[in-house]
Formats: sequence, C-alpha cells, structure tokens
Amino acid sequence: MRGFFITLEGGEGAGKSTQLRAIEAWLRGRGRDVVVTREPGGTELGERIRELLLHKDGRPTADTETLLMFAARAEHVARVIRPALQAGRTVLCDRFTDATYAYQGGGRGLPRERIEILENWVQGGLRPDLTLLLDVPIAIGLKRACGRGEPDRFERESEAFFERVRSAYLQAAASEPRRIRVVTTTGTVEQTTREIARVLAEVLGG
Amino acid sequence: MRGFFITLEGGEGAGKSTQLRAIEAWLRGRGRDVVVTREPGGTELGERIRELLLHKDGRPTADTETLLMFAARAEHVARVIRPALQAGRTVLCDRFTDATYAYQGGGRGLPRERIEILENWVQGGLRPDLTLLLDVPIAIGLKRACGRGEPDRFERESEAFFERVRSAYLQAAASEPRRIRVVTTTGTVEQTTREIARVLAEVLGG
Repeated sequence: MRGFFITLEGGEGAGKSTQLRAIEAWLRGRGRDVVVTREPGGTELGERIRELLLHKDGRPTADTETLLMFAARAEHVARVIRPALQAGRTVLCDRFTDATYAYQGGGRGLPRERIEILENWVQGGLRPDLTLLLDVPIAIGLKRACGRGEPDRFERESEAFFERVRSAYLQAAASEPRRIRVVTTTGTVEQTTREIARVLAEVLGG
Repeated sequence: MRGFFITLEGGEGAGKSTQLRAIEAWLRGRGRDVVVTREPGGTELGERIRELLLHKDGRPTADTETLLMFAARAEHVARVIRPALQAGRTVLCDRFTDATYAYQGGGRGLPRERIEILENWVQGGLRPDLTLLLDVPIAIGLKRACGRGEPDRFERESEAFFERVRSAYLQAAASEPRRIRVVTTTGTVEQTTREIARVLAEVLGG
C-alpha cells in the first residue's frame, strides 16, 4: 500500500516548526511510521543547495532560485519521498512545491506556467495527499519571527513580498480546497494544535 | 549590434583548455572584445554549483545533475552571456548546453526531450552562433587526461560512458553541421590550433 504524503506550508512566523512536532506526535500516536523531512533540503546534497539558497549574501535570479529549488526537490523525491511512500510510510514534509508557487511565483513574480513545467518535469504525477497551510496575518507573523536571530535571505524580504506570498498560498487553497486545508494560527499554540488534530482526524480517521 | 557567441566542446583530453587560450588570442588579434567564461560556473553562484556537481563523493540522480547544470546556466546567461552579447562583445564559453546533451543525455541516458524542455525554459531562443567540437578517440583522450592530478566525479566515469558522450557529441554535429564544427585533435597542438583558426576565419572572416 502506498503511504500518505502530508506537507506543511505557511509564511514567516505562522508556527510551522512548533506544529510540525505536534503533527508528528499525533501521527505516531496513531501507530503510523513517519518520515519527517523538509525543503529545501532533506538529502545531503539538498541541504548544501539549501545553504546556497538561503545564504544572505547571494541574490540569484528568480529562474536560478527556482531551478535550485527543483534540483534539491528532484533529489529529495527520488531518494527520500518516493521510497518512503512506496514502503507504505507516512511522509511529513516541511514545505514542498506549494512554497515554490508562493515564494518564487507570488513573491518574485515568476509566471505560474514556468513553475508548472518544472513541477511536472521533477515530480511526474506525485502531489501531496494533504497540505496543511498555517495562515497568519503578516504583521503578526513577522512580529513572531522577529526574535529568532539572524534572518536568512528570504526572511529579509519586504512586507509587500510576504503579502504576495500569503495571497498566493490562500489562492492555491481556494483552488484546491480538498487537498489544501487552511488553519488560522492567530490563537494560542494549543488552539492551533487542536485545530490541526481535528483536520487530521477528519482526513485520516482516528 | 548583438555580439557573437562561441562555445567550445569536447570530451576528456580533447585539448579544450589549451585551445581555449589560442582561440581567445586569435579573436583578440582581430580586435574583438572577448569575454572568456565556462560552464558549469561563470558566476560566483555558478562556481559554487560547479563544486557540488564535480565533488567526487556525490552521486546525484541524472535529473538533479541536469537541474543543477541549468540552475548554474540560468545565472550565467542572465548575468554574463546576455549582457555581454547585448553590449556587442564576443563570448567564448568553455562548454554549454551541448555538453548537457552529451553528458547527461548521452552519458547518463536522460531522454533528449527532457533536456530540451529545460533548454527552452532557461535560454528562450538563445543558442551559440558557433560551436567548436574538439574530437579525439577515447583511448587517446583518456591517456592525455590521465596525468592531470585528482580526477573529478565525471573524470572517474567508465570508458563506455565516455564513448556514449563522444557519440552524442558527434551526432549533434551531424544534425547541426552549420553551427557545430568538428575539429579532430589527434595531431599536435599546433596542427589543431591552425585548423581552428581556419574555421574561425571562414565563419567570422579575417
């Protein structure tokens, strides 16, 4: 039996890192064999590509940035995600291709069709079974993310950039409401965790 | 006036490095403003991607390798090649997309159509005006390349791999004989330099 592929998405300060651990715990608690991974990264080479991408001095073109994302993704899909799904495991991935549509598409203005070409090139028919989109107004998210030490290249972007990213995420959710479930994270961590658990129980049973 | 875009291609030990300098001297001798560059690389980020690609411990999938090549190429085209051509300069590039067709296509077996998609994605209509393909039988080339210190990841490939690369290059030349000019480098360095000068004079005048 093919496993289940869950991705977690959201902008700066939406609470991804905290909720990732809660989701993992929920899944393990239901007896699932979980692989937790992340993008960009997830493989040794992917993590080196991640360093190139997040390095605060670089400023690659939107095309280069997108190709690097998909280079890391190709390695990640071939070495980690597909093998895990084929073994019937549950894959929980911190960011995936929806982030490319949001950041490089919405944020940097790369046309959607250009991303679609690479998505099909790299993934073939592989898409997440469930995407949890953690959503928070930009002002709150940036305030939360603010105290977390040296910001990377993306975290240094303007508020207008983050607004475009957020809109792109919400638009994606509106066009694929079955796959992408929006969880608003303006409340407490515990409220968000409960809401996510409710969505997981609805989709996966349990 | 748009400049002129020359690429130099060839397998291991075909004599590219030596002839690159001779070609540059020939072009400068005719008063051309020359930009000499290389792939993978040619930009700061591109050189870092080159390190990932040639690192002897890595073993990325053919897909990942190809996406990394095109990530470096996107940066190179946007930052170096297009601006130089737009300024009317002559660009002389050590390897370009023909190498991807030869190494990742011929060598690693990646379908040609998959490379074409990325070529169009990254380059739009940009193609070299002239490609000099230095060709030498594998046995001679490997003997020459043999004494050059620690081999990189590509130089460690099998003889069968290099035969496939050579065949792919020659097939490309056969299908685009006006753009790709084959120069056999079994003779002395001087003989090869003279033959290249003859081709350059024929194509560029002078």
